[in-house]
Amino acid sequence: MRNIYFTPGPAALYFTVEDHIKTALRQQIPSISHRSKAFQSIYQECEENLKALLTIPEDYHVFFTGSATEIWERIIQNNVDQHCHHYVNGAFSDRFRAFANELGKKVSVEKAADGERVIPHQDQVSKDCELLAFTLNETSTGVAQPLEEIYQMARAFPDTLIAVDAVSTLPYPDIDYSKVDTVFFSVQKGFGLPAGLGVWILSPRCVEKAQRLLDDGRVVGTYHSIPSLLEKARKNQTPETPNVLNIYLLAKVCGDMMEKGIGKIRQETEYKSSLMYHTLDEHPLLRPFVKDPHIRSKTVIVAETEGTATTLIDMLKNNQLVVGGGYGNYKTKHIRIANFPTHSKEQFEMLVDKINLLK
Amino acid sequence: MRNIYFTPGPAALYFTVEDHIKTALRQQIPSISHRSKAFQSIYQECEENLKALLTIPEDYHVFFTGSATEIWERIIQNNVDQHCHHYVNGAFSDRFRAFANELGKKVSVEKAADGERVIPHQDQVSKDCELLAFTLNETSTGVAQPLEEIYQMARAFPDTLIAVDAVSTLPYPDIDYSKVDTVFFSVQKGFGLPAGLGVWILSPRCVEKAQRLLDDGRVVGTYHSIPSLLEKARKNQTPETPNVLNIYLLAKVCGDMMEKGIGKIRQETEYKSSLMYHTLDEHPLLRPFVKDPHIRSKTVIVAETEGTATTLIDMLKNNQLVVGGGYGNYKTKHIRIANFPTHSKEQFEMLVDKINLLK
Repeated sequence: MRNIYFTPGPAALYFTVEDHIKTALRQQIPSISHRSKAFQSIYQECEENLKALLTIPEDYHVFFTGSATEIWERIIQNNVDQHCHHYVNGAFSDRFRAFANELGKKVSVEKAADGERVIPHQDQVSKDCELLAFTLNETSTGVAQPLEEIYQMARAFPDTLIAVDAVSTLPYPDIDYSKVDTVFFSVQKGFGLPAGLGVWILSPRCVEKAQRLLDDGRVVGTYHSIPSLLEKARKNQTPETPNVLNIYLLAKVCGDMMEKGIGKIRQETEYKSSLMYHTLDEHPLLRPFVKDPHIRSKTVIVAETEGTATTLIDMLKNNQLVVGGGYGNYKTKHIRIANFPTHSKEQFEMLVDKINLLK
Repeated sequence: MRNIYFTPGPAALYFTVEDHIKTALRQQIPSISHRSKAFQSIYQECEENLKALLTIPEDYHVFFTGSATEIWERIIQNNVDQHCHHYVNGAFSDRFRAFANELGKKVSVEKAADGERVIPHQDQVSKDCELLAFTLNETSTGVAQPLEEIYQMARAFPDTLIAVDAVSTLPYPDIDYSKVDTVFFSVQKGFGLPAGLGVWILSPRCVEKAQRLLDDGRVVGTYHSIPSLLEKARKNQTPETPNVLNIYLLAKVCGDMMEKGIGKIRQETEYKSSLMYHTLDEHPLLRPFVKDPHIRSKTVIVAETEGTATTLIDMLKNNQLVVGGGYGNYKTKHIRIANFPTHSKEQFEMLVDKINLLK
């Protein structure tokens, strides 16, 4: 019997992916040239479907990388000359911050306690700051930064680039892309693909900034600098031989999601997360790690456990239900449950039933 | 009917890959955590099989990246502080050189005419040079740099790191890894996997050099710096969520190749390349682009065509045989034929028969 993976990524494949892989093999997609018309039309379909699904503005670009981790590096390299400001809500947003330090930038930080989010303060951002780095969904703690707080900072600092790490939450959040400059994710979470592809959405302002740095003699990288990615993207190509199979699969899965309807996906996500948080609120041995309901992630639900998390994780595993352990220091104190589009209401109800057996 | 892809990469999948993908899906490999024991044992199997297949020294490391293109960048970032020397035999070795320029290094170059290779001259390498960059198999022209010439330079410059781009030729060449410092390739060529994974083999000296640069305050990158990759590799992990499926497939394909025997794979490669070069030598409308038989690639065979290459490419395509066009300026003047382990002798004989119909 197969496991159902509620892990926060890699997670369960989107339920159509296996069939798409089989079709791709029949059509010999892995053997086509990345410089061929066949690949160009896969790239185009992927970009068009993604833009339609997420309502991304026409003049924004979509680039492909090896991972979302790579995109942290590329954003700092290409969009920050001296100084960026990071909102740190947990381990992953802190790693984005660390990349800026490793690349020799001046880094200012606002940091929240675990299970909370930074409430951004305008007076914490100095005038020379070139980029504000937000993490929409902190995968380590299950905290979601409210989009309205990000938009407010964007309005307050109209000349500053706004970066939004949307790993482990897209396609759920209805982001107004026109209010931010760059948004990125990896495909092995909400989109339910095999890992090995990062997706980088960016505004014309990001392109201009990178070009300005390049013109000023700064090092912005090589094949995955924004100017290099853009030159190829204009031809629906990538600078290197990319993960062609995953780009094909992402095109297809975005198509499937559009057919289902993004509204319905969002509605179901909210139903499933309400069900789970209600279960945690009522449970004698579990409680949501994030106290403030307003900032609880809809897509990565983190619960504190009475005693060790291992008992619960093992019991669920014996029922073919795989949830994640806690992150870092919380390894044996938390469980993390992904709520992605591929997880059906019935699967969530089954998971809730098993969790309630522990009472 | 299915095509047979003789393109120099992406190419035909290794003949066992489709079955391995189906097994991976049944075993839900794409859903396992990259921090799990299950992943660690896949990583370990992949590294062990690769080291056994290619006879890589025990103390050398194997890292995974998004592409071989990425490895060009990472080598320069991590192993060159000021000055590197590049042997340019065509478009790909020249792109490796260009990366060093873009990263602000002092770059010295020896350049060959198209279809020839640089004969390395010791007096062209200055004393401050930290790394010699060779391309074993120039995919654009079908020129192979003799390994003995690389070893000679390594002996002449014992304190200089020796980098060998082995894209589009491994697992064929029997490299003595102990005589060089870093060798790398991408999996969509000789190993017959879907694209989206680079493999970086490197000596302890590369690690030491990167650590020294880091200690001296140089920027060596972030998640894919050598120190960061090494820290995770020691636990059979990667810094980011990697292309887990491809690492699994590479482990399996290396296992399959060992079962067949690397000696037999090399023998068959030589038989098939002899057959093809003989065909080209005898053909009234075709001739090998590389004149000197000693430096003709065994794995990417490039032919000049009388008239346009398009006629031949189309005729072969109508027979489900897909060969590559020429690279860059040679687009309509050359054909390029990959000779990889997945291509059987029978497939090569069929290709030769069809090419001879053009007489």
